[in-house]
Amino acid sequence: MKLENKQWYYVKRPEAQIGAENYELRKDVIDTSELKENEILIRSKYVSVDPYMRIHQSIHNTWEKPQELNTLQGSGVVGEVIESRSDKFIPGDFVNAYTGWQEYAVINADQARKLYPKIPVSTALSILGMPARVAYFGLLEEGELKSTDTVVVSGAAGAVGSIVVQLAKLKGCRVVGTAGTQEKIDYLQNELGIDVALNYKEHDSLEKMTKALAEACPEGIDVYYDNVGGNVTDAVFNLINHKARILICGQISQYNHGLDTPEMGPRFLHKMLYTRAKIQGILSRDYNHRMDEMLAEMEPLVQSGKLKYKETIMDGFENLPAALSGLFDGSNKGKMLVKIY
Amino acid sequence: MKLENKQWYYVKRPEAQIGAENYELRKDVIDTSELKENEILIRSKYVSVDPYMRIHQSIHNTWEKPQELNTLQGSGVVGEVIESRSDKFIPGDFVNAYTGWQEYAVINADQARKLYPKIPVSTALSILGMPARVAYFGLLEEGELKSTDTVVVSGAAGAVGSIVVQLAKLKGCRVVGTAGTQEKIDYLQNELGIDVALNYKEHDSLEKMTKALAEACPEGIDVYYDNVGGNVTDAVFNLINHKARILICGQISQYNHGLDTPEMGPRFLHKMLYTRAKIQGILSRDYNHRMDEMLAEMEPLVQSGKLKYKETIMDGFENLPAALSGLFDGSNKGKMLVKIY
Repeated sequence: MKLENKQWYYVKRPEAQIGAENYELRKDVIDTSELKENEILIRSKYVSVDPYMRIHQSIHNTWEKPQELNTLQGSGVVGEVIESRSDKFIPGDFVNAYTGWQEYAVINADQARKLYPKIPVSTALSILGMPARVAYFGLLEEGELKSTDTVVVSGAAGAVGSIVVQLAKLKGCRVVGTAGTQEKIDYLQNELGIDVALNYKEHDSLEKMTKALAEACPEGIDVYYDNVGGNVTDAVFNLINHKARILICGQISQYNHGLDTPEMGPRFLHKMLYTRAKIQGILSRDYNHRMDEMLAEMEPLVQSGKLKYKETIMDGFENLPAALSGLFDGSNKGKMLVKIY
Repeated sequence: MKLENKQWYYVKRPEAQIGAENYELRKDVIDTSELKENEILIRSKYVSVDPYMRIHQSIHNTWEKPQELNTLQGSGVVGEVIESRSDKFIPGDFVNAYTGWQEYAVINADQARKLYPKIPVSTALSILGMPARVAYFGLLEEGELKSTDTVVVSGAAGAVGSIVVQLAKLKGCRVVGTAGTQEKIDYLQNELGIDVALNYKEHDSLEKMTKALAEACPEGIDVYYDNVGGNVTDAVFNLINHKARILICGQISQYNHGLDTPEMGPRFLHKMLYTRAKIQGILSRDYNHRMDEMLAEMEPLVQSGKLKYKETIMDGFENLPAALSGLFDGSNKGKMLVKIY
């Protein structure tokens, strides 16, 4: 059988915000009769869009060299096995794999992780996937979280932030978060049980944000889990306690401009002296090999409802570039995904 | 016996660079007949001036509240015991204590550390004192130093930097340092055996400093020991390797202005993501309780000449404020001290 396989290629470097103009829809053909031993054919059901994609499009080296033009956009995917020449999978199985923005993919069975959907399979890209790994290990290990800590989370209603907020609350911490819409503030307060949620758009100067955070954190800030950067982060540095732990998981406010031409901001490193604080960059892929350990802790919490999750799901393969762009407008609550079928 | 005791009091908050106008010479009288049991009278021989003194004069809280006006300037001192009511000390002993900018002091014997001067006693304030503690524990422990690391040191010819340079060389690392005069560059190259010494005044833009450091560090930067901040630090962030360790020991370029009104500089936290680097603030006082451990390692190295040291010694009690001010002009090689008699 021959399948037409639609794919999104990255074809033009973004000057600022990434959008549809940076991608091109192409078509490939997969001949299912050519499947080799141990290979499986999967059909993408949910495809991920993530801020790191934009980082990789900087003109500078980041994890590695900049993403080359005319390459398939990589991404995490939840797919259904359509054909299998592996004894690990049968058609109908759902898997998590890194097959990118395409409708179908042929991969070696070793590259796929089988999902046992007691919980909707989309969660393999959200509350039980990449965002959860960096939330879990970043907060608990690098953040050395203690129940007496005051924790501030920027991007608190996002894919990673909403998990961090809940893990810190489960630990018993005071938790303060920032987000950019009233809807997100309500979500954080009413559904995730955050102590204080601040709309950063209402506190749009260093002075205002510092004042708001100081009121929300009367005992200072012990742990800052940063997904955003910029003004919120500047304000946090005014309030960190001795031996504070600052985790840099994202700097989404910088990705569309600041990577290529750095924004200017107030110098703060002298504050590291007084406080003997730590700043640690964290990345989900560093914990890939500890996925099972994370799932053993997190799955029961999700199943029992102690950990809640939201996914913002756009429909249709054609909307992948728009969904990615939407991340930078803050249009998602929880994880942004695209549902293909 | 009654002794006239000259003292320098901090009386006026500095707007920018600290100087003589911020201090006032006062006189006190010590009646030696009033010495209590376990007390000793010491005469200051060497008195320390250190950048942290200026930090404490910020209008903002740092380690604690700003130094109050009309207080004796605190500092480390090497003094000679003149009278003793302790069985631990006899007149003629030399001690290290924190008695501040005054000619004499009466202290409890527990507050003094006895010196056994196989090496000149002034070293208790330099290569075997406070600067050595933060160099030693900061570099080796927080810096997790490995022999394959490329190490960059700002303020490399200063009290702390010159020790860091040598410890890293002894470990087998490639070591690159920055300093501000040709004399210091020569000292680093000819006496301390640094691999490359860069005059930051000749590389006075981010582009120039980045280029110079990139040439000096062909394999990137693994450890950055920062005493200075500003442009050198900005450039280092362009070149850090994965899992780099950045130690913030000082930010002397910021102390005279930037503490009260932060300077602007390029945002760099996004680079922590790609590299999963760590920034750790370090402070000598955190290792006070491990002084003996440091001395056990360092004293033999100093005695055998494997660790060299320079002290910039100004003569005369009246010159203490000028000596402190001089730190910010970079007029010292190694530790700046004032010799009282």
